[in-house]
Amino acid sequence: MATAKIKAKTKAERAKLAKVSGESATHSAIKQELIAAGKVLVAEGQDDFTRGHISFRLPDRPGLFFMKPHSIGLDEITMQNILTIDLEGNVVAGAARRHSEVYIHSEIFKVRSDVNCVIHTHPTYSIALSATGRPLKCLSQPGALFYDALGVYADTINLIRTTSMGMGVARALGSGRGVLLKNHGVVVTGASIAEAVIGTIMLENGAKIQLITEAAGEYAPEFPRADIENLKRDISRPEQFQINFDYLARRVKRRG
Amino acid sequence: MATAKIKAKTKAERAKLAKVSGESATHSAIKQELIAAGKVLVAEGQDDFTRGHISFRLPDRPGLFFMKPHSIGLDEITMQNILTIDLEGNVVAGAARRHSEVYIHSEIFKVRSDVNCVIHTHPTYSIALSATGRPLKCLSQPGALFYDALGVYADTINLIRTTSMGMGVARALGSGRGVLLKNHGVVVTGASIAEAVIGTIMLENGAKIQLITEAAGEYAPEFPRADIENLKRDISRPEQFQINFDYLARRVKRRG
Amino acid sequence: MATAKIKAKTKAERAKLAKVSGESATHSAIKQELIAAGKVLVAEGQDDFTRGHISFRLPDRPGLFFMKPHSIGLDEITMQNILTIDLEGNVVAGAARRHSEVYIHSEIFKVRSDVNCVIHTHPTYSIALSATGRPLKCLSQPGALFYDALGVYADTINLIRTTSMGMGVARALGSGRGVLLKNHGVVVTGASIAEAVIGTIMLENGAKIQLITEAAGEYAPEFPRADIENLKRDISRPEQFQINFDYLARRVKRRG
Amino acid sequence: MATAKIKAKTKAERAKLAKVSGESATHSAIKQELIAAGKVLVAEGQDDFTRGHISFRLPDRPGLFFMKPHSIGLDEITMQNILTIDLEGNVVAGAARRHSEVYIHSEIFKVRSDVNCVIHTHPTYSIALSATGRPLKCLSQPGALFYDALGVYADTINLIRTTSMGMGVARALGSGRGVLLKNHGVVVTGASIAEAVIGTIMLENGAKIQLITEAAGEYAPEFPRADIENLKRDISRPEQFQINFDYLARRVKRRG
Repeated sequence: MATAKIKAKTKAERAKLAKVSGESATHSAIKQELIAAGKVLVAEGQDDFTRGHISFRLPDRPGLFFMKPHSIGLDEITMQNILTIDLEGNVVAGAARRHSEVYIHSEIFKVRSDVNCVIHTHPTYSIALSATGRPLKCLSQPGALFYDALGVYADTINLIRTTSMGMGVARALGSGRGVLLKNHGVVVTGASIAEAVIGTIMLENGAKIQLITEAAGEYAPEFPRADIENLKRDISRPEQFQINFDYLARRVKRRG
Repeated sequence: MATAKIKAKTKAERAKLAKVSGESATHSAIKQELIAAGKVLVAEGQDDFTRGHISFRLPDRPGLFFMKPHSIGLDEITMQNILTIDLEGNVVAGAARRHSEVYIHSEIFKVRSDVNCVIHTHPTYSIALSATGRPLKCLSQPGALFYDALGVYADTINLIRTTSMGMGVARALGSGRGVLLKNHGVVVTGASIAEAVIGTIMLENGAKIQLITEAAGEYAPEFPRADIENLKRDISRPEQFQINFDYLARRVKRRG
Repeated sequence: MATAKIKAKTKAERAKLAKVSGESATHSAIKQELIAAGKVLVAEGQDDFTRGHISFRLPDRPGLFFMKPHSIGLDEITMQNILTIDLEGNVVAGAARRHSEVYIHSEIFKVRSDVNCVIHTHPTYSIALSATGRPLKCLSQPGALFYDALGVYADTINLIRTTSMGMGVARALGSGRGVLLKNHGVVVTGASIAEAVIGTIMLENGAKIQLITEAAGEYAPEFPRADIENLKRDISRPEQFQINFDYLARRVKRRG
Repeated sequence: MATAKIKAKTKAERAKLAKVSGESATHSAIKQELIAAGKVLVAEGQDDFTRGHISFRLPDRPGLFFMKPHSIGLDEITMQNILTIDLEGNVVAGAARRHSEVYIHSEIFKVRSDVNCVIHTHPTYSIALSATGRPLKCLSQPGALFYDALGVYADTINLIRTTSMGMGVARALGSGRGVLLKNHGVVVTGASIAEAVIGTIMLENGAKIQLITEAAGEYAPEFPRADIENLKRDISRPEQFQINFDYLARRVKRRG
């Protein structure tokens, strides 16, 4: 994992962290970024009570991932309550309750070695878009981020509580960035926490702009494919996600 | 009443509470949860000036219920101003003014022994949905919670100020979870305070998603009945309501 | 002027107030209520930069009124900057700059002796409703408050900067409660500050519910005239406006 | 630059400022106003992560301009991180990273000597309006501000990263006040920072009112051209922009 935050830490700070938490400095830094991510998601309106979750794959043990536990809000993740889970969905460390929808995460991690972070939330406009049955159009720059990269899972409105349902979501994701779970919510992935968080927020922005535009009547044609793909490349750079995520994390901290 | 909050209290804490308030610890705990509920409802946008109310049936005296008084906001309920009211709508304890719409509560408590909490509010999208004359569709998970469980009361736009109007609302409720009062507001019920609060918020979310979807044009078919009923069972568990309510109550406290 | 706040003050408190401010206790109390009203209007989203104003007629000198000055926000009214203005629009006391739209206020005060408070703001949904050219329907209880009581001024999109334009607005008001200034804003009146403030907020709520409903497609018929008029009577009682305003004023104070 | 803020400063204050910052008092005052502008834009919902920028031309060196740097939010501009850039887009002072879209600013400054401030943001409703392909109608007073003064740039959805793309935006601006960048965002200009900030906010308000109105169905005709032009003159006065901007700046400061 390569985040500005971690880079900024001195060797001494890392060692101290590891000592305190009884685990590697890298793991501590990941957990701290998950805590920040949860607060950012709530600040940006991605909360739906205690529903919704975020996970991150351990860089040194790709068959395990950290995950927010059940029964708390996304803004209540702590160093103590984060679970460590394997790709079968078994909790291997941590005492808190596991989300039954863990299979969204484990099944995606199984088939997408490039994905290290998975987010599932219930954002208003993204759900409404999923209900229309129409795809996300490229009526705004967020639309370019998900161009040819947003699957649809329409097997059920239910929670994703089995391995086989998780496989269905992973199949809908394919090689893409996200999935609309019809009449339910979204799944967004990233190589980093920053990428998944920014992607989740941008998907909702793009859905909102599209639904407002559609409600108002006809709209002008999208730009040509090649033009959209240029933008997609530009706004998909890892560094951009991190810069934008770090800003939101600072802002959450400033606002208390 | 079985809430995490109350369970968490030690015997000693309960005794102290009872001594202080001059009433049973259970009653004190209920009143405290009503206070939290009112603050949560305002934080979630369910306020309309001092209009809207919440009540809870006394577990040891099912012919009586506690209720928010008139002239204050939902976020201004205190241990002192909560009224105790009987099923005819008479105030039996408390000095504050009673809401004239008390009959919504008393008439539902009369015919629904499984209901312990009744909430009446005026949320924007739920009112708009009631005005369309269309039912709540299952375009999102909140739609499943109210599937086959949302009545419509369309006798009048007026306040529910008589026993007979209250009976009309109770009739529209039937064995369901809630009622749309056409061009007026909503009534949502629960076995617990948590269930009624979360239900009220979910109804508004579901209505909002539906109206945004409808405004944007056509939408895809709902999932089959059996699929929706599966989800309805899953998200109707008492424990889930309490977990989600407790989170919102913590959040309100954190935000001051 | 009959407000709970003023009634609640003891003779001693009034005398003290008068001494401090160098003017009558009643005038001081009115100014304090105007200050609270401005803060409430901003908190409820009625602000549009420094645009928008509120005025109140002096009970002891009905040919004069207090008015928010130019160049400040509605939440920046102070005891010092409130202007005293006559029915020709001349400033008779106060050093601050006068709003050029003073004639909305003066011309309404001239012809409506029952009106003591006039508010002009630019709320989003009310302006959108004015732009549709359709009347406010009674799709929610706020619709009942303005039933047969909401005029339309469509002479110009310009600021109301002359006596004759002010007369046009007063004519559009007639014996009603408010006026939609087409593609511009609203004017809402009341016997008390509370009545005008609550009316302004309710008009925007009613417009919002209507526009959301209309966007989503067809809607069910309104209730019969007699039913709506019953509700209109119920929610037009002076005491109700004051109770609801006092709540919003307390809330603004609590939230700092 | 003629702002109330600067005028209000005494000679002594200016001298002190210059001493502290090691640069002219005028430059310090401009930077302080850019800092305030950034905070106001975020408070008014114009933020999109760290995207969006603002620039101001140096009054004493019209071939140079100050500009917000890359990698920070609009509310994180400081005296230290503001860049000084020439009309070819070269950084001539400052250590921070430059926005690649600098050419929006430099190309407009080249051809519009009356423009001293350029803002580029990604506001929801303005983007949706750009996506409809329809012009901004005059359904509200903000519509009058941009009457015959809002260009459309529809060459690409991509970032404006070359001189030639910047020239395209400047061409779309013409002698107007702003440009809709189709499916991307807005560019708004002003003689002062205040004018550009207030213009940006008003454009979004106008777009929102129009899209809400259009979603709800048919709408009434706009006012005649002459009537709109009268209002346009009234609300385009430099002093008005400054008064409204200063209010928003005070409000941001009050709210912390």
